[in-house]
Amino acid sequence: MPVVIKERPELAKVEPFRTVMTGDFEKIAKLSLHDLETIAVATLTGMDVEVFAAEAKAWIESARDHRWKQLYTELTYLPMQEVLGFFRANGFKTFIVTGGGQDFVRVYSQRVYGIPPEQVVGSALGTKYGYDKAGKPFLTKEPKLLLNDDNAGKPEGIHLEIGRRPHAAFGNSTGDRQMLEYTKAGDGARLSMIVLHDDAKREYAYGPARGLPETRVGTFPQALYDEAKKDGWFVISMKDDWKRIFAFE
Amino acid sequence: MPVVIKERPELAKVEPFRTVMTGDFEKIAKLSLHDLETIAVATLTGMDVEVFAAEAKAWIESARDHRWKQLYTELTYLPMQEVLGFFRANGFKTFIVTGGGQDFVRVYSQRVYGIPPEQVVGSALGTKYGYDKAGKPFLTKEPKLLLNDDNAGKPEGIHLEIGRRPHAAFGNSTGDRQMLEYTKAGDGARLSMIVLHDDAKREYAYGPARGLPETRVGTFPQALYDEAKKDGWFVISMKDDWKRIFAFE
Repeated sequence: MPVVIKERPELAKVEPFRTVMTGDFEKIAKLSLHDLETIAVATLTGMDVEVFAAEAKAWIESARDHRWKQLYTELTYLPMQEVLGFFRANGFKTFIVTGGGQDFVRVYSQRVYGIPPEQVVGSALGTKYGYDKAGKPFLTKEPKLLLNDDNAGKPEGIHLEIGRRPHAAFGNSTGDRQMLEYTKAGDGARLSMIVLHDDAKREYAYGPARGLPETRVGTFPQALYDEAKKDGWFVISMKDDWKRIFAFE
Repeated sequence: MPVVIKERPELAKVEPFRTVMTGDFEKIAKLSLHDLETIAVATLTGMDVEVFAAEAKAWIESARDHRWKQLYTELTYLPMQEVLGFFRANGFKTFIVTGGGQDFVRVYSQRVYGIPPEQVVGSALGTKYGYDKAGKPFLTKEPKLLLNDDNAGKPEGIHLEIGRRPHAAFGNSTGDRQMLEYTKAGDGARLSMIVLHDDAKREYAYGPARGLPETRVGTFPQALYDEAKKDGWFVISMKDDWKRIFAFE
């Protein structure tokens, strides 16, 4: 971000960049998806995809969260790691389908989840093929959102990059709804499961389903809970069903 | 195609549909890429992706070519099948990166090449998630070309759906140029190979490189041949280097 502001100082005066430059985490967390897209396009357009990967890798190798003081990559859910391992041990191929940027998640997916880059589907800008001064080809990011891998974009992204319907899918928010519906609607045995963040003490509580607090992150509305019950998805209560949440506990 | 014309009879009177309806194979073969895109969009928009897959599967299981009277799926190149098997036996993961439609190739890729659907990258229309009258979700094809997986679109498609640079790539026409450049430009040992169709007797001769006949299919210009030599790609002469072209020979 500072690089973009340095190159285009006028941006510091307009939203959403002004909010980001305040450094106020509370305010930044309240930016809308549209704001975040504007930021992504402004900061990433024209960037060499390999430079992006190197910077993302350097960041993720040292960034720690504020609450647990752990590397973000240590904050994966142990029961989800176990279920990935269980499926792989039984001949299934595992994928990540994320609303986050696929170029970002691909940087650490193998190391952290045992999932190689080509098995990560996520939101993606287009890229453009070109040549540097020495004639060496490279790809740069384009200001065009090719895949918004959230909500209906999840089954669409699965079709684009995987090309078959999942046998099992796991989610934890309203952005996973269509993926879980699409998975469950396949023929034969299909499994849809959704994690309810209902443990403010050990982790977080995200509602508003079942009277849990409203939140902008990981929203879990009551309608999603009702659909899960009606459609035969399993709702996992973090509080009741998970003995251990993180491996470092 | 007849279905589209039945539903929209006015199309039979306009190009490129008029040409298709003549049934004149020579004329149809001369349609431009833009014409083919127009046809694809008109015939596929709104189609359930699973209906498309079922129809494509039924067609490919019985369609035979005019010259060899073989199923199209029997007309794969034996040396290419051997190289795929060789790479896989040595721990590599193999992919198809095609200018053709990825939803089409994914229907037979596992059976014919041993490559699963999620390892096929090709041209793709967008899809749209929706529900039928019973509330069952499904995906339909949209009139929007999301990925034109030819020329510069090949490395762009590789980045989108695979997310890493190939260690080895094999092509056979000018549409593969950027993919071969991109592969060869990676660090360490990289292999780019390109098949020259120079055997009109046993297969086809596609130029105009090296004085071979000009063609609209699988064009191989002299500039591509020169770049291969300069950039260190290996040019495979079908005539001189392949003892057997097809497994059924």
